[in-house]
Amino acid sequence: MIKACAFDAYGTIYDVHSVTEKCDQVWPGKGAQISQIWRLKQLQYSWQRSLMGNYQNFWELTKFGLKYALEMLKLPHDDKILDEVLDKYYHLDPYSDVTEALETFAPRELVIMSNGSPDMLDKVISNNGHYKYFTRFISVDELKVFKPKPDVYALTEKYLNVKKEEILFVSCNGWDAAGAKNYGFTTGWINRNDEPIEKLGNEPDFIVKSLIELAQKVKGL
Amino acid sequence: MIKACAFDAYGTIYDVHSVTEKCDQVWPGKGAQISQIWRLKQLQYSWQRSLMGNYQNFWELTKFGLKYALEMLKLPHDDKILDEVLDKYYHLDPYSDVTEALETFAPRELVIMSNGSPDMLDKVISNNGHYKYFTRFISVDELKVFKPKPDVYALTEKYLNVKKEEILFVSCNGWDAAGAKNYGFTTGWINRNDEPIEKLGNEPDFIVKSLIELAQKVKGL
Repeated sequence: MIKACAFDAYGTIYDVHSVTEKCDQVWPGKGAQISQIWRLKQLQYSWQRSLMGNYQNFWELTKFGLKYALEMLKLPHDDKILDEVLDKYYHLDPYSDVTEALETFAPRELVIMSNGSPDMLDKVISNNGHYKYFTRFISVDELKVFKPKPDVYALTEKYLNVKKEEILFVSCNGWDAAGAKNYGFTTGWINRNDEPIEKLGNEPDFIVKSLIELAQKVKGL
Repeated sequence: MIKACAFDAYGTIYDVHSVTEKCDQVWPGKGAQISQIWRLKQLQYSWQRSLMGNYQNFWELTKFGLKYALEMLKLPHDDKILDEVLDKYYHLDPYSDVTEALETFAPRELVIMSNGSPDMLDKVISNNGHYKYFTRFISVDELKVFKPKPDVYALTEKYLNVKKEEILFVSCNGWDAAGAKNYGFTTGWINRNDEPIEKLGNEPDFIVKSLIELAQKVKGL
């Protein structure tokens, strides 16, 4: 039985690659490439700094990721431009099925469980009018360590106060779903881009192509 | 003063992308792409599994990385082909300046400090005739956790029995050099591909384009 759902934010509810258009305006023709490297580095830094014991919040890592991408592609930039582009992270586009999916999941308690720092989460959720769907916004910032460290999923369980396996953890990031499953949650992996299952020692309970598909699948459970 | 040098193996002494030719033989035209995804996943799994507390040795992660790459690119494969391609990891090509560089570093004690499992390290080092240059081969396998966790660098210090800052840690992986610096080593980053400095909270003591350049730089130190 699924009593509550915890959603990853970046990549799952909000499309991190919706920065592409803004990047293309500033660096014509480079948007997609910037966005790929930016996201890759943002995540790598979260894993590497967690291991190093050298935490900086996700907003800082997002900045570092963008800077790295621009340096790698040798694109001109200054602090003003960085701030202007980073502002898009407060206004990321949600995936098109988010509203319908959240309403379908809705009689259950829904929370966000994100790497994002509280301030950046607050802004993207309120700018998208999504506050009404969730009872709580859990940030790893409380622990100063990132996913997929088990402590992060344990924090979610603590706040939800429901048995592990009765929590459906929803992520489009295969490694995040694997981290949640490794901790003991029931997991739904939104495999939007037809990617292989990550080789991290377990498999998601549900593999679907969209949020709405998952919402309909677990409706009766 | 530099009293001893610790070298990363994969990417620093041995060219992980020397698998490209073998991959191209089996999957024509796909070698470079396979090699990129393979390496990316091998490393991601090392970070993610270290955080999850779900260790598998580096040989297993190397296998998982290759499998993921082939599934992602939808290329046909079976266990026989996987074993045949993986065998190249026991025979990776060294970078062209390795012999000259190691001989230049040589009056000092030189060790390998690698994510690699003891068996795979043994094979690639002996197949390349490199046993004579090193006094010790330190594997993270003893700790069941991967770089850049500080414990790994601490293990190196323990075996070398020299002060932290008198150990020169050499890696072509920017994040590995950052991990070593974070622990307190003197670091040399071999930046072969003109990449930006990783945004991990510190900078390498030496940034060079090749092993031999670093060897010559620290000769008198």
